[in-house]
Parts: sequence; C-alpha cells; structure tokens
Amino acid sequence: MTAASEMKPESVTLHPLGTAPASVPELLCIFGTGDLGRSLGLRLLQSGYRVVYGSRRPDSCGPLPQGAQVMSHAAAAQTASLIFICVHREHYEFLETIAQHLQGKVLVDLSNNLKKNIYPEANAAYLQRLVPGAAVVKGLNTLSAWALQNGLLAGKQVYLCGNSAEAKQAVAEMSTKLGLTVLDRGSLSAARELEDFPLRLFPEWRLPLRVAFGLMAFFFFYLLIRDVIYAYVEQRKDISYRIMVSLANKVFPIVSLIMLSLCYLPGVIAAFLQLYRGTKYRRFPDWLDRWMLCRKQMGLVALGLAFLHAIYTFIIPIRYAVRHKLISRVVDEIDNKTTPFDFDKTEAWGTDSFYVLGILGFFLYVLLGLTSLPSVGGTLSWREFSFIQSKLGHLTLGICTAHGYIYGWNKFLRPTTYKWYTPPGYMLCLIVPSVVLVLKVLLLLPCVDRTLTRIRQGWERTQPREEKFMNKSTNL
Amino acid sequence: MTAASEMKPESVTLHPLGTAPASVPELLCIFGTGDLGRSLGLRLLQSGYRVVYGSRRPDSCGPLPQGAQVMSHAAAAQTASLIFICVHREHYEFLETIAQHLQGKVLVDLSNNLKKNIYPEANAAYLQRLVPGAAVVKGLNTLSAWALQNGLLAGKQVYLCGNSAEAKQAVAEMSTKLGLTVLDRGSLSAARELEDFPLRLFPEWRLPLRVAFGLMAFFFFYLLIRDVIYAYVEQRKDISYRIMVSLANKVFPIVSLIMLSLCYLPGVIAAFLQLYRGTKYRRFPDWLDRWMLCRKQMGLVALGLAFLHAIYTFIIPIRYAVRHKLISRVVDEIDNKTTPFDFDKTEAWGTDSFYVLGILGFFLYVLLGLTSLPSVGGTLSWREFSFIQSKLGHLTLGICTAHGYIYGWNKFLRPTTYKWYTPPGYMLCLIVPSVVLVLKVLLLLPCVDRTLTRIRQGWERTQPREEKFMNKSTNL
Amino acid sequence: MTAASEMKPESVTLHPLGTAPASVPELLCIFGTGDLGRSLGLRLLQSGYRVVYGSRRPDSCGPLPQGAQVMSHAAAAQTASLIFICVHREHYEFLETIAQHLQGKVLVDLSNNLKKNIYPEANAAYLQRLVPGAAVVKGLNTLSAWALQNGLLAGKQVYLCGNSAEAKQAVAEMSTKLGLTVLDRGSLSAARELEDFPLRLFPEWRLPLRVAFGLMAFFFFYLLIRDVIYAYVEQRKDISYRIMVSLANKVFPIVSLIMLSLCYLPGVIAAFLQLYRGTKYRRFPDWLDRWMLCRKQMGLVALGLAFLHAIYTFIIPIRYAVRHKLISRVVDEIDNKTTPFDFDKTEAWGTDSFYVLGILGFFLYVLLGLTSLPSVGGTLSWREFSFIQSKLGHLTLGICTAHGYIYGWNKFLRPTTYKWYTPPGYMLCLIVPSVVLVLKVLLLLPCVDRTLTRIRQGWERTQPREEKFMNKSTNL
Repeated sequence: MTAASEMKPESVTLHPLGTAPASVPELLCIFGTGDLGRSLGLRLLQSGYRVVYGSRRPDSCGPLPQGAQVMSHAAAAQTASLIFICVHREHYEFLETIAQHLQGKVLVDLSNNLKKNIYPEANAAYLQRLVPGAAVVKGLNTLSAWALQNGLLAGKQVYLCGNSAEAKQAVAEMSTKLGLTVLDRGSLSAARELEDFPLRLFPEWRLPLRVAFGLMAFFFFYLLIRDVIYAYVEQRKDISYRIMVSLANKVFPIVSLIMLSLCYLPGVIAAFLQLYRGTKYRRFPDWLDRWMLCRKQMGLVALGLAFLHAIYTFIIPIRYAVRHKLISRVVDEIDNKTTPFDFDKTEAWGTDSFYVLGILGFFLYVLLGLTSLPSVGGTLSWREFSFIQSKLGHLTLGICTAHGYIYGWNKFLRPTTYKWYTPPGYMLCLIVPSVVLVLKVLLLLPCVDRTLTRIRQGWERTQPREEKFMNKSTNL
Repeated sequence: MTAASEMKPESVTLHPLGTAPASVPELLCIFGTGDLGRSLGLRLLQSGYRVVYGSRRPDSCGPLPQGAQVMSHAAAAQTASLIFICVHREHYEFLETIAQHLQGKVLVDLSNNLKKNIYPEANAAYLQRLVPGAAVVKGLNTLSAWALQNGLLAGKQVYLCGNSAEAKQAVAEMSTKLGLTVLDRGSLSAARELEDFPLRLFPEWRLPLRVAFGLMAFFFFYLLIRDVIYAYVEQRKDISYRIMVSLANKVFPIVSLIMLSLCYLPGVIAAFLQLYRGTKYRRFPDWLDRWMLCRKQMGLVALGLAFLHAIYTFIIPIRYAVRHKLISRVVDEIDNKTTPFDFDKTEAWGTDSFYVLGILGFFLYVLLGLTSLPSVGGTLSWREFSFIQSKLGHLTLGICTAHGYIYGWNKFLRPTTYKWYTPPGYMLCLIVPSVVLVLKVLLLLPCVDRTLTRIRQGWERTQPREEKFMNKSTNL
Repeated sequence: MTAASEMKPESVTLHPLGTAPASVPELLCIFGTGDLGRSLGLRLLQSGYRVVYGSRRPDSCGPLPQGAQVMSHAAAAQTASLIFICVHREHYEFLETIAQHLQGKVLVDLSNNLKKNIYPEANAAYLQRLVPGAAVVKGLNTLSAWALQNGLLAGKQVYLCGNSAEAKQAVAEMSTKLGLTVLDRGSLSAARELEDFPLRLFPEWRLPLRVAFGLMAFFFFYLLIRDVIYAYVEQRKDISYRIMVSLANKVFPIVSLIMLSLCYLPGVIAAFLQLYRGTKYRRFPDWLDRWMLCRKQMGLVALGLAFLHAIYTFIIPIRYAVRHKLISRVVDEIDNKTTPFDFDKTEAWGTDSFYVLGILGFFLYVLLGLTSLPSVGGTLSWREFSFIQSKLGHLTLGICTAHGYIYGWNKFLRPTTYKWYTPPGYMLCLIVPSVVLVLKVLLLLPCVDRTLTRIRQGWERTQPREEKFMNKSTNL
C-alpha cells in the first residue's frame, strides 16, 4: 500500500469511490459512435468524466460530443478500464481480434435485439465468449439515446448482471453518478432476461385488455341480437344505423362497470380466503395473485371506457337520428292533436338522478385515475393511497352501480323488457358489481372486520398455543 | 491504521462508504418475515446486499426472497451490525430477551401504528427502552411493501431520526443506495412525528375542502329558497325536480369561481401588506401564511367543481325536463299562433360569448391543473412556473369572472331578478373575484409595481440610512 | 500521510467524500438570510449538515431555521470552506471588503437576474473578479426557495460551472447529498448560460405556438370571408353571430389536424432522406432537426385544440341559434304542411360515423397526451414508447383524417361548396395529413421497410467494399 500511495497522488487514495478525484477526472471508453454511443458520451462528459471513443474510422466518424477524443479501438481500449460496447451484436466479431487489448477490462454490453429469441445465446454471453479475459457486465440497455440526450435519467432504474462483482460495482458507481438507480440481477446468466426488458410490450395490460375486448365482443353481439336483429325479425324495422352510436354507448358503460367491479373483486375474494383459512401466512392461489397484480390496469381500462361513454352521451342531442325523432314527434303530436305533454315529475326526478349519479361516478372515476399517475400517487402517504383506492374506489363502484339500477328502475317488471326471453344488457352488467358490493358490506360488519384486522396483523386461528407467540413476532 | 489495514483486506479500507466492497457484499439483518420484511429483503438483495432473516420459526416462516438466509433471531443478530425491525410493536417484548445480542447494533424501527396516540410513547422510544444498549434509528416507515416490491423508491424522501449520529449515517448510506433521499429529523424524540407521517390523511386539503363544502351548503340553501321555495310560495309551482341538476349546476360554478379567487386573494393581500409595511422582512400573520400554503389545493378544488359544471352543462339538452320544455314550447306557439320566432342577434351574440368565455376559462383551468401535476411542474423553470401560475392564473380568473358577468348582463337592472329582495347567486359570487381583479390591476400600475419589486429585492422604506446598505446584502 | 492520520480522527480519513464523518457533521456557510438563504439552510440542516449564516445584522436578521448559527460575514466565512452566496448581485460589493477572509474558499453563486443581458458580465464572473482568491462555482441557481422548502429536489438536475475542478467536486458532492443530479457545464465562462436558464420562457413551445397561431389566423380570415362575408355580399344575410362559436369550431379542428400531421411529417421526411442518401451517418438539415425537436409540443398544441373542438361541439345543442333554428324549422314545416321528415338512413349512418370517428380520434389523442406526461412516459419501455408514439400516433392521424373526409363525403362534388371558387376549409386541412399518410404507407411497403431498417442498423449503400465492415462496428 505504501508503494501504491507513492505512485499515485494522494487524492486518488482518498477518493476511490464513484466520485473521481477532483483533479484528474476518470476516463471512460466507448466503442461505437452511433446515436447511443454519442448520447452516452455526452452524458458522461456532462457528469464530469473524460471520454475516449474507439472507432474503426477515427478520422471520419461524424460529429462527436465536444471534449471527447477518438482513437482506433485498440488504442482507445488501452486508455480506460471501463469500456461501453455501443455496437450492434452483428458486428461483435471484431472484438475477438483485439481481445488481447481487452484483457482485464470491464466491458459493458448495452446492446439490444430487434426481436426476442433470434440468437441462441444472449448478446452479453456471446461477448464474454469472444473476449474471455474481460469482465462482461450486461446493463444500461434500457436507456434510450433520447433519454440520455435529454437528461431524463434521474431516478431511473437500470439493471446490471455479470459474473464479476468488482466489475458490477464499478459500473454501479458510474451509473449512480449519472443519477440512475441500480438493481443487481445476479450473474451473466440473467443477461437474456435483461435483453428482453426493452422488448416488453405492455405485459401487464394484456390480461385486462383481453378481458375487456372479450366482454365488449360478447355484449356487442348480445345487444345486436336483442336490439337490431329483434326489431328486424319481429317488427320488420331496419334500425341498423343504431349500431354506430346507440349500441356502442350501451356496450361501453356495461363493460366499464364490469371491469371496475373486477378491479375490486379479487380484494374481496382475498379477504374471504384469509377469513376462511384463519391466517395471512398462506399464499394465495396463482390466478388470484396474477389478478391482483393487474387491478390498476383493469381500473384504467374501465376509466377509458367510461370516458368514451361520457363523450358518446354528450353528442347524443346533435345526432341526426335524435333530432329527427324529436322533430317528428312534435309534428306527429300536433298532427294527431294528441297532447301527452303533461310534465311527469317522477320521470324528471328519475332521469335527473340517473344523470347525476353518472356524472358523480365519472368524476370519482377520473379522480381515481389521476391518483394512479405515478407522480401523483407517489406523493400520497400510505393511508391516503389506501383511502383513495379502497374507500373512494368502492364508493365509485357503488355510485356507478346505482346509476345502472336507476336506468332500469321502472323496466325490471315490464314484460316487454325481456325480448326473446333474454334480460337486457344493463341487468347482466349489474350482477358482478352487486355481488362485490354485497360481499364488501359483509366484510365491513364489525365482527368480520375485527377478525380480518387481527388476521392481517399476524394472528392465526389454527395455531398451536405454544407457537402463537413465536410467530407473532414476524408480522409487519 | 497500519494494524487495521493489515487485518482487513485492502479493498475494505478503500471502499468504506455506502458502497460495500465489491468482493464481499455487506450483510444486513431483518427481523420479521411479513410482507414488509420480505419486500425490504428483496430490494436489499437487488441492490447488492446480503440478507439474513431473524425468525422465531426459521424452519417454517413461509416464502422468502431467493438468496436470503433464515436463522433464529439471536443468531441472525450476530451476523450483522444493522438490523431492521419489521415486527409489530405489540410483539417487541421478545427483543428484551435477546438484548445482549443486540448490544452495539443499529436497530432500524420501521413500525407504524394503526391510529395516532394509542401508546404513551413512540414505538422507537419503546424499542430503545427495551434494548438500551443498541442504537435505535426510526425511519423508512413511510415505505410500503408495495413500493418496495415494485421498485418505486427512486427519489423518494425518507426521514430518519435517532440519538446516534453514526447509526443514522449508516442507515442513510444504505438508504441512498436504495435510491432514496434521506432527511435527518434529529434525535429520537422526533420518532412520534415520524410515526404519525404515514397516518396523515390529506392535512393540506382540509381547509380548502371545508371552505368549499361550507360555500356549497350556503349557496345550495340560498338558491333553494330563492328558486324552488319562492316558486312554491309565490306561484304555487312545484319545481323541486330542478334540485338535482339545475340547482347543482348553479352551486358548482359559483363555488368554483369563489374558490379560484380565494386562490389569488392571499397573494394580493400579501403584496399590499408588503407595500404598507415597506419591507419584506417581516413575517406575514399566521392566517395568511396558512392560507398561502393551501392555494394549490384551493385551485384544484375549484377545477374539480368547474369540471362538474362542464359535464352538468353538456347533459342539459338530453334531460327530460329540457326536452319537454322545448317540445311544449313549440306546440304552445303553434297552438296559439304566436310567432315570436324572430331571431334576436343580440341574444345570439350574448349567449355565444357567454359559452365561449366559459369554454376558454375551463380550458385555461385545465391547463393550470396540468401544470400542478408534480411531474409537469417539475420540468418548468422558475419563470415558466410563475408565468403560468400568476399571469395565466389571473387571466383565467378574469375570463371566468367575465363569464359570470355576461350571464347576468341583461338581468342586473330587472326588478324580477331580486326575488324577495335577495340578489341572485351569480351576483354574490362575482364580488370576491371582482375585488381580487381590481386589487391586482392596482398592483400592476407602474408606480406601485416598481415599489413592490424594489421591496421584494430587499429595499426597506423605513430603514435608517446607515443600516440600509448592510441589510441589502441579505436579500435573495 | 501518517502525520495526517495522526492529526485527524481516523473516521475523517475514512469518510472523505460527500458523506460527512458521522461524528462531526460538515459545516457550511450561507451569506444572506432572505427566502432562498433560509430555505437552503433548512434543507442543508435536514440533510445532516451544520449551517452558519453570515449576516450584516446578525442580531436582527429575522427568523432562521432552527439549529443554524448567525455571525458577521467575516466570522461566518472563517468557519467553513464552502460558502453559498444568496445575495442579490447588486449588493456584491461588500464581498470585496472581506475578500481576505474568502481566500481559498469555495463560493457558490446562486444568484439570478430579473432579465437577460442587463449586466455586461455574468454575476459569477463579477464575483470572481471581486474575490480573485476564491474559487467561484456558479450553480444551483435553478432551485427555487419554494422547491427547497417543500423538498422537491429529488432527482432534479442542477448545473454547475467553475474554473476549479476541486471546488466543483465539493459542490457536486453536497448537491448529490441533497438528492440532486449534477451536470458539469465546464468553466466559469458558462455562467452566463446558467444564469439565463431560470429566465427561459417555454423556448421549445415558441415554434409550435407560432405555427398554430399563424394557421389559426389564416383559417379564421379565410372562413370569415367564405362564410360570413360571402353570405352578406351574395345573400344580404348578416350571420356574423356565427363567428363566436361556429367559425371557431371550424378553425380549431382544422388547425388541430394540420398540427397533428406536422407532428408526423418530419419523421417521414427523415426516413425518405435516409433512403435517398443510403446512410444514417449524415446529419439532417438544421430545419429538420429543429422541427423534430418540437414534435411533442406540436402534438400537445394539437391536443389542446382538439379539446376545445370537443367542448365547442358538446355545447352546440344548448346554443340559442341552434335551438331557434330547430324550433323555427318545426314551425315552418308545420305551417307549410311540407313533410320532409322521411328518415334518411344514409344520412344517419354518415353523421354517426362522422361522430364516432371524431370520438375515437379524440380518445386516442388524449391517450397520446397522457403518455407524454413525464411520469407516465418514464415508465414505458423503449418499445412501448415507440409503439404508442408511432403506431398509435399514425392511427390517430388516420382516424382524424377520416373524420375530416366523412365530414365532406357528399359535398366534394357539389358546386355550391366552392363559394367564390374557393375550396372549403376542411378540404384544405386534409391535404397535409393525406400526404403524410400516403408517404407513411409507402414506407411500410415491405421492400422499402427492409431497406430502411438496414440503414438504421448501420448499413450504407454507397460505401466502398473494404470500409463496410469497419463502419459497421459503430452503429448502435
């Protein structure tokens, strides 16, 4: 150690970590002068590093960030101990030819592929095979050139994996200095997983979207048969023009309400499961876990459909068909000298209540949606978040369900409602929300609620007396 | 020091801070294998730590994150110098029994209670009392298991308090590595405050919501009397069906406009106070400070009410009562052969201006709301933020006030407007905004504006000549 | 080194960076007790530093954060090596008088000016001239007192510049501890640039807003002539009341659609340029670069206009003119015994399709807008982001263009459409979107798409055979 401190300036000995010694900024090397390479270099320079590019054509490699040097790959490799490989995997072979210059270096593989599973081994594993003497670290590959250029790194999570802990440590320190949060995913065998990350396409949205489209298709055909085809078969009337707006404006709210209730159903099921089992220490079945993980997405799909329902409703009065109906009704009544213009107060109260519940429900829906924005949700305390997502969420469900009940308040007992002996769509869509609300009310009964709270604090019903105390200590 | 560097591997000497030496990741201990304990362990493992769980039933404590070890509490405590206590306060007693193993350790108390003030002393103070030989640090208790599992930590603020600076330092370094931002709240006596944090329920929303509900109740009853009861008493007409939509659609915009002006009133009052005092170095009265702190929430409540007003307005034409009125009016006029169908251009211009001002006001309202989103507001420069919140804000207030004035443009001088000698609601709601706008215009007068700018740059009117220069140096 | 370690406690030797030794928190000095000084001090105290204020009136400088000391400037300067200058530039002279106490200190200049270019030299350069013996670092000046007080620093980027690397390093470490992300902008000559940062006023919004206002003015006058003036000149009808709503509701959607297509045009042009040049390694012309940089803002302006269009449409049926037209049409038809009330199914299908396309387009528009929120966009993977902004974006453009085509579906060939031989506004606005969509479809042709993908992966058409391999290695 004495020898080392004699050879290096003292400041180096004192500032070994993450922060380069003030007098001599650390030098990093980047192979590749494409978009990513240039953006990464720019950001590294801005964070106080010196940067050397390795290029096969150092004299004509296009515009590079100010302050960076360019050299041949071999020369550049010798200047730094950390080398970023910003080159497409297809061109990795050249690295084998300069493998002796990469001996002992840390190679950061930032590459991604255009599709999954087009190569038998991960890019990083391939790189390690080409240059066995270097320590390959896979990582940072989720960063885009765009994010790097625009400084959108602060607080972003990046993943690292690699076989050398020292190499990972060095990359982690550099990443922290860029403002990134680093997560270690283990050895290089995780590289494939990391390379698949940027290729994800809304995995957590798939189930909710599938459920929504399935329900929408079902209700569309159900209502098509009940409304349009029934009218054509039984009354010889062609009302197919209603498909575009009227039918859609029935399908959207129906599916929206069902999706919203599917959002709160798994929570209720989980509570009953815990009550039944008498413990919270047993895992939920897989399907319930997966369901619970996509509740937020379910809620947002429901909000989207509610938004469509609202707009569809707002444009009702400017539709040609509606105006025509209004005009012809007036003309009819005048021609026939019928005067059914008595103002029906019950009707006025009923329809207005219907609209008001819809508006309030939509308002709360939007509020729930806003709090699910990462930047809004992040500022809420745990109790605030649970208040909004649970109390306000169930209130929304209750109001929207009431909106549905009032829609049919005077039609439930009318025989004409049941065309071809089928119930109308809004009745079907009220089943799930009603079940959820009834179960939720059961859970709120004092005796049930007390037991559930105790279970969630770690109490177990079936535990042997002597173990009870022991387990109690592990339950936050 | 020579002795130390001989006993420890050199890398340890070189990497003492926050970042564990690359070759031997630091080991941390977690007591408790509940949701929080498991999530915390997972996150620590992902950040490159090794984790040991302490459990009373090491053999049957359920699924733990891959890579973590489980031992008895006493054995686990001996492996690490930092121990997270993820156990409910109710079960802390067992820690007393193993107090000798916790001697000199740092204990991080992450516990929360279900309610405020259910125990005489803070959980962390209780813990310190049970294990006097350990250094208790309260903190991280605002993190939820959910946030830990989903990696939503980046940039989050956490609070620490404790009596040992070294212990806090160690926890702070660990927290920084998880991507958290640490704020030191002083000694362990602050633990109670920290434990109350996660129990907050929108404290800064209380005042605005109370004001809004108060105003809504007042205007509801005021309009109920003026509209519904007046019609019943004087004209024997039951128009109670109007309560649901028409009345609400008057209350919402009235309260929304008042709330918006209450948003800008304190700023104007503060300016006049500074002008009157001739200095910015004297504190505002407490009520003004508190008022200014909840301006954002006032504005958002106003936006919510404006949103409701907009939707209530959009559904007007599909209401039963409105359709009925339209139809019966046509029928009436045809029956009576009256032809008042002359197109009134002033009426057309007036109502259209009314709607357009409403739309533009709502548009700006929404814009203001969007910039108050943390992630949007955070990207604005200081000047952009003040431009939007001040210039655009006052413009919005002006447009919405004009919207209100045009509503009553031809009704101000009509005697029938003043039923039972009371002014209509929209007149009442125009008072505060008008006052704010007039005062704001006064502040924009060149001479007033110049004085105010000087005061805000540190100038003082009443200062003795010799002190003037001295104070001037402290005014950014 | 042995001497040093004997004089200092060992912990200091081991904790030299960013993190103060746990036992003795680092002491920082702040000159100025105004809003900024106080807020900065509060934040520093919370982050574990000790703070000393320098004030000319240490005895009467108003309320300071708890735990901070106040001294005279000279005395305060001697206690710390890092001094924050929270004083207005106008009062810097006093620093010259205590220059000897500032010898060798790091002075952080946080000052901003009210306007650009009011002084010949940057504030920080002026400070350096006054105190040549100190190391001036310009920086942190983008932080507001408000953000400091409310702890909104996490992940925020701050810029530093200065001539001393050690001084910048010290400030960078302090900033990192506050949760800030630091970007080094080089020597003190960049100070002016840094001081202009907080004075920016939406620079990236200027071009989009100018284009939008230009287009709106053009279309407003074009439609004014075609609709209102034409009717007055040719038919002696005064329909000027239509300006407020009907005309605006034509201008908004027209400009919105054009802005949306201008959002996607530069991408298409860039693709054709790359195809034509056969390489991606040549820079785009400056105008194209600038255009591409403001696409997001163009899209948001387009969304704003679409939002206005939607609300303008929703209030159509409650307008006086529309109600009057409806009523008088009914009365007319009854009086004249004409019965043109045959329900036109094509009309019903046409108008409903028109509305539905508008609604769906608006829905997608809003979705695009939501993903451009920093906090939402930040959670998307690269592929998700490109899916939304490219695929969904072009779909939106297609749907909105179809919305425009259907509007004029039966009017294109009607001679009365072409008043004064001018095409109606919606025809003009369909030109650019149609061109963009046609070009995009061309780019999606398999052969073109394949070539483009190869070019974007680094392939070059005109490259000499032997260089091909070499360049290929630099293209991520």
